[in-house]
Parts: sequence; structure tokens; C-alpha cells
Amino acid sequence: MTISNLQQETDQSFMLQALALAEKGKYSTLPNPCVGCILTKNGIIIGSGFHKKAGTGHAEVNALADARNKGNDTSGSTAYVTLEPCSHFGLTPPCAVALVKAGVKRVVCAMTDPNPLVSGKGFDILRDAGIEVIVGICEHQARRINVPFLYAMEHEIPYVTQKMGISLDGRIALKNGASKWITSAESRADVQTLRAQHQAILTTAATVIADDPSMNVRTDEFPKTVKLSVPEEYVVRPLKVIVDKRKVLTLKEKIFSSSGDVLLVYPSDNRDVSEKKLTEKINVLYVPAVNNSDDLDIEQVLKYLHSIKIRNVLIESGPKFCKFMLSHNLINSLILYIAPKLLGDDAISFCKLEGYESMDEINSLKLAKCTQIGNDIKLEYIIKE
Amino acid sequence: MTISNLQQETDQSFMLQALALAEKGKYSTLPNPCVGCILTKNGIIIGSGFHKKAGTGHAEVNALADARNKGNDTSGSTAYVTLEPCSHFGLTPPCAVALVKAGVKRVVCAMTDPNPLVSGKGFDILRDAGIEVIVGICEHQARRINVPFLYAMEHEIPYVTQKMGISLDGRIALKNGASKWITSAESRADVQTLRAQHQAILTTAATVIADDPSMNVRTDEFPKTVKLSVPEEYVVRPLKVIVDKRKVLTLKEKIFSSSGDVLLVYPSDNRDVSEKKLTEKINVLYVPAVNNSDDLDIEQVLKYLHSIKIRNVLIESGPKFCKFMLSHNLINSLILYIAPKLLGDDAISFCKLEGYESMDEINSLKLAKCTQIGNDIKLEYIIKE
Repeated sequence: MTISNLQQETDQSFMLQALALAEKGKYSTLPNPCVGCILTKNGIIIGSGFHKKAGTGHAEVNALADARNKGNDTSGSTAYVTLEPCSHFGLTPPCAVALVKAGVKRVVCAMTDPNPLVSGKGFDILRDAGIEVIVGICEHQARRINVPFLYAMEHEIPYVTQKMGISLDGRIALKNGASKWITSAESRADVQTLRAQHQAILTTAATVIADDPSMNVRTDEFPKTVKLSVPEEYVVRPLKVIVDKRKVLTLKEKIFSSSGDVLLVYPSDNRDVSEKKLTEKINVLYVPAVNNSDDLDIEQVLKYLHSIKIRNVLIESGPKFCKFMLSHNLINSLILYIAPKLLGDDAISFCKLEGYESMDEINSLKLAKCTQIGNDIKLEYIIKE
Repeated sequence: MTISNLQQETDQSFMLQALALAEKGKYSTLPNPCVGCILTKNGIIIGSGFHKKAGTGHAEVNALADARNKGNDTSGSTAYVTLEPCSHFGLTPPCAVALVKAGVKRVVCAMTDPNPLVSGKGFDILRDAGIEVIVGICEHQARRINVPFLYAMEHEIPYVTQKMGISLDGRIALKNGASKWITSAESRADVQTLRAQHQAILTTAATVIADDPSMNVRTDEFPKTVKLSVPEEYVVRPLKVIVDKRKVLTLKEKIFSSSGDVLLVYPSDNRDVSEKKLTEKINVLYVPAVNNSDDLDIEQVLKYLHSIKIRNVLIESGPKFCKFMLSHNLINSLILYIAPKLLGDDAISFCKLEGYESMDEINSLKLAKCTQIGNDIKLEYIIKE
């Protein structure tokens, strides 16, 4: 093994540890990305940290503070950071400057920050100070832990995930609407962790009327194996977005009184998107219909959500809205919890798509992950990257 | 750790090795069970073997021969056998007698043979010769590798598995019947290994007409990771059983000319089951209808298959036959290959069950195994144990 090979393996090993740290923020960092940082000196870790919540210290600052708290001198150290150190004064001073001041001599980064406020400028500050900068170590893994953030930055729209609990034969309810419960308690506990990783939950008046759900995050229902690595109050509380195109909701439904703010989506009389405050917790967004149809222009809703820094949206809806979103190519990933039940041919399908004439018309989705949850299966598919 | 604990752990460790050997016969031992045997002396393996094919040496005989070939003296040894050694003269002499003659002093067995010709008698021969006999080590695992054999012995009917390749929304074909190919080439290769583990494949004239399949075992299409541990000619060639209740097949379909014998199932004019030889490769079984209906009494077919020593049956059929078999409680396990595609709400469901009024009427199946095969998922459920 050559020295440069050895150096690369060492860099990868520390970066993987920094990535594991970064992931600890997955319930709390949004709208910021998950970032981890490890400081080493002579091959020994002298400090580490991760970003916990917007407005609190970045990973690099936390790692430098950790090193100092342990009485370690950071001068001459190497910093492993999962994302380019920031260059701008936001809620905290620029991390690139903090690394320079701390006397770090080498910075290893997994990837460039796609945020146009930073992109490349963080590296410039470091290089201008004579620091050696390596970029691209474990970039693939680094992108994976921040898919919604990166997608939102690059496309200026949130990353959208459709979640469904279905039977083995692809049904969500009996003909008469009965559906309690198709999936198991374990799967429903997993859904709580899924909600907690999203800044917004999108549903429809039809679902609110059918199920009267709270659609909040209940951390006490998290699976026992899931441990929060941040204080409970750091956990993201998703905005509940409800499409009510016929204005049928009374605002007395449970979803309005449970924790978390609500954004009601109403049809607009003209082509404009406008917003109105209804109560302390409830806002209304008026959006036009899609091409003179009965359906509202959800892409406008997503663009609005992006403008208020929402990076990802979880859809919990029925089959009609699922079909609408799929047929308008607005869904990035599909998560299915499949229960070991057969509901029968007259039961309601999870997705009301129809009308294919040839198998060639049908695209394959990309399977991203398959997890067994008790007798249920959780399947994660990528539809749009 | 006490001495008896240590002994038990040693016994388990060797038994697991014997079970791994037994499993090597999974493509060839039927109608016999998979059996493995390990001989040890002073904690060292001196010989090992497994049963490969009916009519060839049993596991114990193969292990004794292996020890002798290696120049090892079997007297005073311990034999680990995954199933009770046989006591009867079948195609080979009784293994229990062979173990006695070889001077084995201790026999550790995973389970008693459910075959009434043997059950307990093998142990009697050993004990009468002063051999210490331990029964029940790793019994759970031993039962698992011989589920079809044990089920057939205990219920006098073959173990029935329904296999389906379906879309994510539970469909097997478009409205116009198009279905080539829903699942991937990798899944179809896996189906070849599934067929090779069955003594009979059951299908219907409707499927034969729709797809004109060969339904034979093509070992050259096995996934590259699957290695046969027996000669190619040992591999089970399933009997192809075709239910043709309207006698619409011309016998010119591919399934009749491809390798493997065919049993055609025709309706009988009376309540009797009778058999007739049509050609060298094709027999006809006449069976009555179920309760004056149009459907044939498949349970009679299964009983007939049991009488000719068929332990397991793989169903490869369309949704109507699947519904028939499910609603008559004739299926033991369901294997679904789920492709990452949405065929839409007007496509054909994999199972034509219908008519549930309440979720309480719907039973949960038991998930036995979940495997990722490329972008597809293979799910194995237990319906009837």
C-alpha cells in the first residue's frame, strides 16, 4: 500500500465517522442540512460535533468547542467535515473563518455546499489562509443523508415523499371505506419517525374527513430502538398542509387543534397565489386550479413551501390525490408499508392510475431500501431524482 | 459454564454443521427429506455426508463411508444426524443398524422421523445396542429445512405453495392481458430455483393458453450465486399438472413437449378419481367437480399426488385459480415477487378475492422471509402451517 492510499483510507474512515455524527441531526436540523465534523491530530480524534438545529452552532464550531473543552490544542489539526464549511454570516459566524482561526492545517470535505450563498466560497477562505483542502471523500454517502436538502437547493422546490399503508394486493380500504388498521402498530410507530424527518405533511380534506387524524409527531410513540440524540424540543414539528378545494372543513377537526401549525389550501378566484392569516395557528394559501380543472395547482403550493424554507414534504393522502400527484410527476419517492393481508378485488386501490395499453408504457421505479417491520414490509422507491 | 452446558453447545455447533450439509440436497432429495450427518471423535470431525437422491446412500451411510475413506476408525465416535436414522429396509439397509455396526457410541439427533415406518424404531435399535441417544438438538431448524416433507407426512397431502409475480399495486397484467415481463430477469432466474425445489407444478389451461410456457426447470438459468452440490441429473424434474376443466388444450402446446412428464386433470363424469395413460409422457387424471360447481375438486388431485409420493406442489396460475385455491384453504404458503411498477387500477388483480364487509374478517398472513432481488422483492408468507 502506498502512502497516498493509506492517507485516503484514513480520510475515508474519519469521514464515515463524521457522517454518522451528521445523521444524528436527522430529526432536528431542517431547514438546514445534517452536518458532522471530526478534528484529528496525529491520527487521534481530538474533538467532534454535529449540527443540531438551525440557529445553534454548526458542526465545525461544535467540534472546535468540544476539542477545547477537552483541553486539546486545535492548531495543526485536520478537520473532517461532511459539507463545505460556510462562508457567510447567517445566524452564526462563518465556519471557514473559525477553522482558520483555530489553526487547522488540513480540511477534508465530503462535498461542496450547493447553497449559492456558500458554494466554493468556504473553500476559497480556507485555501487563501494556506490550508490544504481535499473535496469529495465519501461524497456519495454525504449526498444520501441530505437528499431533501440537496434536492430543494438544486431544484428550488421541496423533495416530496408519498407514504401509503397498503395490503399485499395493493389496497388501502375495503369497498365500504373500512381501513382500521391495515398495517401493524410497529409500522405506525415507524411512521412517527418518518413524520419527524419532514418539515411539512400534505393531506386532503377527504382524508381529514375520513380519518379525523392528528397528523402530528408523537415522539413517545417512536419505536423503542430509536433514540433521539437531541433534546425533545429540537424535533421538527411539521407544518400540516391541507388541500381543501371545496372548503368543506369546519376547522373543528382534530388536525387543527393538535400540535403544529396548519396551512389550508383553498382555490383562488384568479391565477395568483396569495396568503392570508386566519388564526394564530392557521394560515390560508389561495392557489389556482390546474388548466381549468377541478384540481388545484399543487406545484404552486410546493413553490410557496420552498419560499418559506421547507425542504421536504410528506404526503399522507388517499388514492385520488396520490394519482394526481403521480400523474403530474410531483413525487420524488414512494414509501409503502405492506401489511400481510389480502383485502380483495372490490377493495380500494392505493393509486387510481389507469389506462395503460402496453407494458412498454410503464416505468420501473428504483428500489432504494427494503426493511422488515414485524410482519409488515417497508419499501422505499425513488421515482424522481 | 457447566460441563453439561458445554456439551450442549458442542452438540448444537456440530448439529448446525450437519444441517448445513442436509440443505445441500434441497434440489435433489425429494420425495425423501434432506438429511445431513457428521461423525466426530474427541471433538474432531472424522467424516460427514448428506443424502443426495432417493435410491442413493443415506446421510449416515455416506458419512461412515467418508470416515473410512479418510482412514478414520468410527468406533467410539459420535454421530450428529438431522433426522432419526431409519430402521426399515427400503432401497438401502437401515442406517440405525449401520451406526451400530460401525461402533458409534453416541447418536445426537435433531428430530424423530414422522414417517410411521420409522418413527421411534430407529432410536430403539440404537438404544438396544447400548448407544447413548440424544433427541431434539436444533429441532426447530431441522423442521424448517424439511417443511414440505414433514407436512406431507403429517397431513397425507402435499405442501402447496402459490407463486405470483406482481406489480406494486398487486396486479399481474394490464386490462388487455399484456404482462411480459412484470418482474425482472433476476426474479425469473430465482423462479427456476423455486421450481427445482418442487416435485410438481400445478397450472391451468387458461395460463397455458395465455402464456404458452414450458414450466420446466432450466438449471442453466439459475442465478450465478446458486451452485448445485449434486450432479445435474439429480435435480428434481417436476411433474407438470394442468387443470383443463373444459378440455381445451390440443396437447401441441409447448408445455407438453418440454422436458418433464405431464398430468392432465379432466372432469370426471362421476364422483370417482381415475387415471389413464395417454402417451409415454402424458397421463390423465379424471376428477369430479366441487359440489356441482364448474370447479374441479383439486383436493382430490392433491391426494392423488400424495399417493404417488409427491411432497410439494408449486402453483403457477392466474388470479381466478389463485382465488379458488385460497378460498378452499388449499394453499400453505404464498411467494410474491413484487416488481417496482404501477400497472394501474384497471389492470388485473393477482387474486380475485372479494366481498369483505369488515376488517375483522381479514386474517393476517405470517411473513416468513423477505429478500431483495435487484429492484424486485421476494416475499414469502405462511398461510397454513
